[in-house]
Amino acid sequence: MDKKLAGIKLHERVGQLIGSDLAEVEKVFQEELASKNPYVNDVYTHVSRFRGKRLRPILVLLTAEATGGIRSSHHVLSAVVEMIHTATLVHDDILDEAETRRHVATVNSRWNNETSVLFGDFLFTHAFHLASSLETTYACRLIGEATNLVCEGELSQIRERGNLELSEEAYFQIIDGKTAELCALCCHLGAYYTDSDQETVNQLSQFGRLLGTAFQIADDLLDLQGDEKETGKSLGTDLEKQKMTLPLIRLLSQSDDESSSRILKLLNQPSPETRTEIQKLISESDAVEYSMKKALEIAAQARTCLNSLNPSPAKQLLEDLSDFATQRSS
Amino acid sequence: MDKKLAGIKLHERVGQLIGSDLAEVEKVFQEELASKNPYVNDVYTHVSRFRGKRLRPILVLLTAEATGGIRSSHHVLSAVVEMIHTATLVHDDILDEAETRRHVATVNSRWNNETSVLFGDFLFTHAFHLASSLETTYACRLIGEATNLVCEGELSQIRERGNLELSEEAYFQIIDGKTAELCALCCHLGAYYTDSDQETVNQLSQFGRLLGTAFQIADDLLDLQGDEKETGKSLGTDLEKQKMTLPLIRLLSQSDDESSSRILKLLNQPSPETRTEIQKLISESDAVEYSMKKALEIAAQARTCLNSLNPSPAKQLLEDLSDFATQRSS
Repeated sequence: MDKKLAGIKLHERVGQLIGSDLAEVEKVFQEELASKNPYVNDVYTHVSRFRGKRLRPILVLLTAEATGGIRSSHHVLSAVVEMIHTATLVHDDILDEAETRRHVATVNSRWNNETSVLFGDFLFTHAFHLASSLETTYACRLIGEATNLVCEGELSQIRERGNLELSEEAYFQIIDGKTAELCALCCHLGAYYTDSDQETVNQLSQFGRLLGTAFQIADDLLDLQGDEKETGKSLGTDLEKQKMTLPLIRLLSQSDDESSSRILKLLNQPSPETRTEIQKLISESDAVEYSMKKALEIAAQARTCLNSLNPSPAKQLLEDLSDFATQRSS
Repeated sequence: MDKKLAGIKLHERVGQLIGSDLAEVEKVFQEELASKNPYVNDVYTHVSRFRGKRLRPILVLLTAEATGGIRSSHHVLSAVVEMIHTATLVHDDILDEAETRRHVATVNSRWNNETSVLFGDFLFTHAFHLASSLETTYACRLIGEATNLVCEGELSQIRERGNLELSEEAYFQIIDGKTAELCALCCHLGAYYTDSDQETVNQLSQFGRLLGTAFQIADDLLDLQGDEKETGKSLGTDLEKQKMTLPLIRLLSQSDDESSSRILKLLNQPSPETRTEIQKLISESDAVEYSMKKALEIAAQARTCLNSLNPSPAKQLLEDLSDFATQRSS
C-alpha cells in the first residue's frame, strides 16, 4: 500500500473508534474560541482550514481509551492541546515566513505578522483558560511546564540557526522541546485522567515523546525531499533558514574536509539552485537512509512503551501510529 | 511640583509601604523565568531593563494591603500579571515596529522578530505555569478570561487601524480590552485573595478598569505630545500606524468638512512632516484639553470606587495613583 493510502486507512480506523469523541473535541474547541468580534472569527475560520491531522487530540483520546476509557475531561484536554499546537503553528509560520500550510495561505501572508502574533496569543490564552475549567490545577501546571519547554526548544532552534556545525545531540535536544514535549504531554494527560497508575502514565508519556521525535525526523525529511503539492506546505524552509536537520548533520559528518567546505558554502548561500544541489548530495549519500533508520528505531522504542497495556483496538491504533510516524507523505 | 518629580515622590512612597513585597515579587519573577539556556537568559536580562513602573504588581499589592493585607499568593499573582504585561509589551513592539522602549532597544530591534514572538510566548506560558502553582484554578480561570479579552482588544485595534472614522465609543471599547482589563484583573486578584466580600472585589475591579482607561488616554496623549528623551520610547507610532486615539478622534469631530479632509489626507501620509503638522492642528484645537478632561473625569470615577475602604496608607496611595494617572510625563 502506498504511504498516502496507508495514512488515509489509518485515519479511517481512528475515525471509526473515536470519531464521535473527535467531533465532541471540535465542539469544545469551537465554543471556546467563538468571538463576538467578526475579525477574530474570520481569522479563526481561516486557521481552521489548515489544521491538519489532529494528531495531538488523537493521542489524548487513544491513550485514554487504551487505559480505561474516554471521559469528558479528555475532550476538554484534547481541545486544549490542539489550541496550543495551532498557536505554535501560527507563530511558526511567522518565523518561517511560510506562505502556505496545508494548501492554505498562512495567517501572516493572508493578513499580516501583527495578526499572526495576536491570533497565536489568543489561542494560547484560550487554551489556558479552557484548561482552568477542569477541577484541579493539575492540567494547568502540566500544560504550563510543557509549553515552557516548547518555547525554550523553539528559542534554542533560533539560536542555533546558521550554526552549521550543530551536533546530532543538540539536534535531538531541540526537537525534544519543540515537538516531542507536546506529544508526551498529550499521552500523559490521556492516561492520567483515566486514573492510571504512575508507571502507566510514565510509559505513555515516554511513548508520546518517542513518537513525537520520530514524527519530527520524518517531517525534516519531508522538508528536504517532499512534494509541495502533496504536503500542501512550503518546503525547503529549513535549508533556507539554515536550520540544521538530521539528514544534513549526517551528510556533513560523513563528508571529507573538501566536501564539507563545499556543502557549508552551499548552505551559506540559500537559493533554489543550491537547494537542488544539496538535495543531490544528500541523495548520493547515506543521509536519508541513516535518518530513516534512526526514526524507525525510535518508533520501535515507542512501541515497546505500550507493552504493558492490555490488548484493545485503541492500543492497536497507537502501535499503528508509531509505524505510520516514519511512513508519512504529508 | 513638576510631573516627573511627582511621579518619583509617589514611587518612593509606594516603595516605603510595599518595597519588601515588590522585592519578593521580583524574586518570584526571576525564579520562574530562570533558564538553563544562556540565550533565553540573555533576552530575559535585556527585557528586564525595559520593564518600567511595575504598575500592575503595585495594583495587586496595594489593593491587597488596603483590603486585609498582603499574603504570599499576592506575590505570586503580582509576578504573574507582570509577566503577562511584559509579554504583551514584547509582542506589541513587533506590532509597532518600535525600536526603543524605556531607553533600551526592543527585542525585535536587538535580536529579531522571531525571538520577540517566542520570548513573548515564553513569558505567557510561564505566567500561566506560575498561576497554576496556587491552590485552586480560580486565578488561572480569571487570568485566562482577562488575557482572552486583552488579545481581542489588540486584534480589534489592528482591524480598526487605518479606519480614520473610528468613533469615540469604539475607541473606548478597544482600550477597555487592551489596557483596562489587565488593571481590573490586578485589583480583582488583590482584593479576592484577602477574602474580601464580592462587593469590595467588584468595586476594586472597577477601580482598576477606570484607572487603566485613564492611564491609556494619558499614554495616547504622550505618544502625540511627549518627549522621546523623557518617555524613553519611540513616539508618534500611533500616527505612523494610523491608530486613532482620543485626541485625533476629537480633532476630527470638531473640524468642518474642509479641515477634516485635510486632516484625513495628512493621516493617510504618515511622515515626520505630516506628524508635525497634525501636532500643530491638535495644539490649535481643544483636542488635548478635551482628552485630558475625559481622563480626569475617569480618574475621579476611579477614586469613588475606593469610598467604602477604610482609611489606610495603601488606600491613600491608590487614590494618589488615580491622580497620577493623568499627570504622567513618562
